[in-house]
Amino acid sequence: MIHNGIEYADMQLIAEAYAYMRDGLKMTPDEMSRAFERWNTTPELGSYLIGITANILKKKDADTGNYLVDMILDTAGQKGTGKWTSEAAFDLSVSTPTIAESVFARIVSALKEERMEAYELLPGCEVKELGRVSRTQELEKLKHALTAAKLCVFAQGFSLITTAAKAFKWKIDPAEVADIWQGGCIIRAAMLTDIAKAYRKDPKLENLLLSPVFRNMLATVNSDWRNIASYCIRSNIAIPALSSTIAYYDSFRTAKLPANMIQALRDYFGSHMFERIDAPRGKMFHAEWFDSATKITSTDYNV
Amino acid sequence: MIHNGIEYADMQLIAEAYAYMRDGLKMTPDEMSRAFERWNTTPELGSYLIGITANILKKKDADTGNYLVDMILDTAGQKGTGKWTSEAAFDLSVSTPTIAESVFARIVSALKEERMEAYELLPGCEVKELGRVSRTQELEKLKHALTAAKLCVFAQGFSLITTAAKAFKWKIDPAEVADIWQGGCIIRAAMLTDIAKAYRKDPKLENLLLSPVFRNMLATVNSDWRNIASYCIRSNIAIPALSSTIAYYDSFRTAKLPANMIQALRDYFGSHMFERIDAPRGKMFHAEWFDSATKITSTDYNV
Repeated sequence: MIHNGIEYADMQLIAEAYAYMRDGLKMTPDEMSRAFERWNTTPELGSYLIGITANILKKKDADTGNYLVDMILDTAGQKGTGKWTSEAAFDLSVSTPTIAESVFARIVSALKEERMEAYELLPGCEVKELGRVSRTQELEKLKHALTAAKLCVFAQGFSLITTAAKAFKWKIDPAEVADIWQGGCIIRAAMLTDIAKAYRKDPKLENLLLSPVFRNMLATVNSDWRNIASYCIRSNIAIPALSSTIAYYDSFRTAKLPANMIQALRDYFGSHMFERIDAPRGKMFHAEWFDSATKITSTDYNV
Repeated sequence: MIHNGIEYADMQLIAEAYAYMRDGLKMTPDEMSRAFERWNTTPELGSYLIGITANILKKKDADTGNYLVDMILDTAGQKGTGKWTSEAAFDLSVSTPTIAESVFARIVSALKEERMEAYELLPGCEVKELGRVSRTQELEKLKHALTAAKLCVFAQGFSLITTAAKAFKWKIDPAEVADIWQGGCIIRAAMLTDIAKAYRKDPKLENLLLSPVFRNMLATVNSDWRNIASYCIRSNIAIPALSSTIAYYDSFRTAKLPANMIQALRDYFGSHMFERIDAPRGKMFHAEWFDSATKITSTDYNV
């Protein structure tokens, strides 16, 4: 199930990279195919899905002579495994937002008539063209964006596996899972070799993003990843999965998130209580927000 | 339940705006409070949650004399309603990504120790400071971003309600739901008045984003919304909910998404079949991708 959840996100990321090439860089399917073919020879992106994307983009339709991919309607179906993965993640309190976004992306794709209506009615829907850019450089940035995003998706999937293993007392070796997947499956990818190594080196690794090899990789690709996302957002190219991976990474590495505001709000309207930065973890406090005095006291409930 | 799902996303968006003010614009809680107070008097953002955010930011902690919000730990709790809303959305094939992202944001916030470790280990986690900008202008852009995002969250919640009503044959008048919520609840907001009007004018409205009043609003705020998101992505401020609303809007208004690539991939490895742009909806085709001949035929299965 989690293999398939990762597969949903991997495919959505490939689709978003394809949208960037098709709508932003105005590449032909044949040109795109050559880019995916090159990527397939690299240790970062080499994978079954990147390889078959290259094959797909080359295929011509016998009936019309057009590229077959251009004749396929943009309405994705689904069989439920992405949804189940997301639900398991909710149940186990593991963050897998990119998998969930990929399920929702398929849902929106199925609303073809509504989207065509929205395109007519809503202002400025056209994809803005890139100015004068070097296609070679843009493709290198896109490769970096896809690399970082793909890693974040594996990080989400493996976190769910290791958390479930702890919760259900299953003996699962994540390194072996990586090996098995690498042995033959739809998400098989060169990156799984490094993932297996990372877990062999540190079997208690909390999150793949913290492994030294991936920390170095992220340092290299970080700015291009943001650059591509930022361009897409300013140019109206929908990137639910790509932007979700950046938010996942940024949330995970932010020492001080703004969630203190969420806790303040919850305590204000619902007395849900909060932890304090100057008290032990787990000790809960409630503030008398409505006290008319200038002093607001934080009451120690110690639950 | 859906009220609470919307509430999760509303609060996450407020928290992200607060992060932008605190970490990007380096504002004090008192300065932020005045901004939220001003926003609370506007028809776009006036709401219970914006009002109490202004109150929260003013409160001092009796023990330390510091602003109380600064003494609250950034680890959000949850009771399950955001998760249930997301699961109902999956079950009914409705896209509510921002609600799901808000649940995941709370999950990540709870990993305080891991986040502090990641902040130390990962490269360049510091929030990049804005260059020389006008704070007044930035706050106006942020207000626009929050307005568009808030509307997208309502659009997601109301789509789920109207879809459920159809699926379960419930007689639910969405205009009345908006009125009831406006009458008194945590997500009560001036915007609900326009939402009620939109549904009264067009009871069969497919999505709130298509209502004329909101189309005009989106045209006004669109570029500032993207500008703020793009700044946050380039500056390492985590915006899972804000970037998700942009992806939601862009997916919904894209006449031609890249989901044809997803369908091609699914047919290539799993014979899941696809629809064609030159055939009636519902007619399914399969391509013989592995045919060694140069001609690839699309076989009509007509299921």
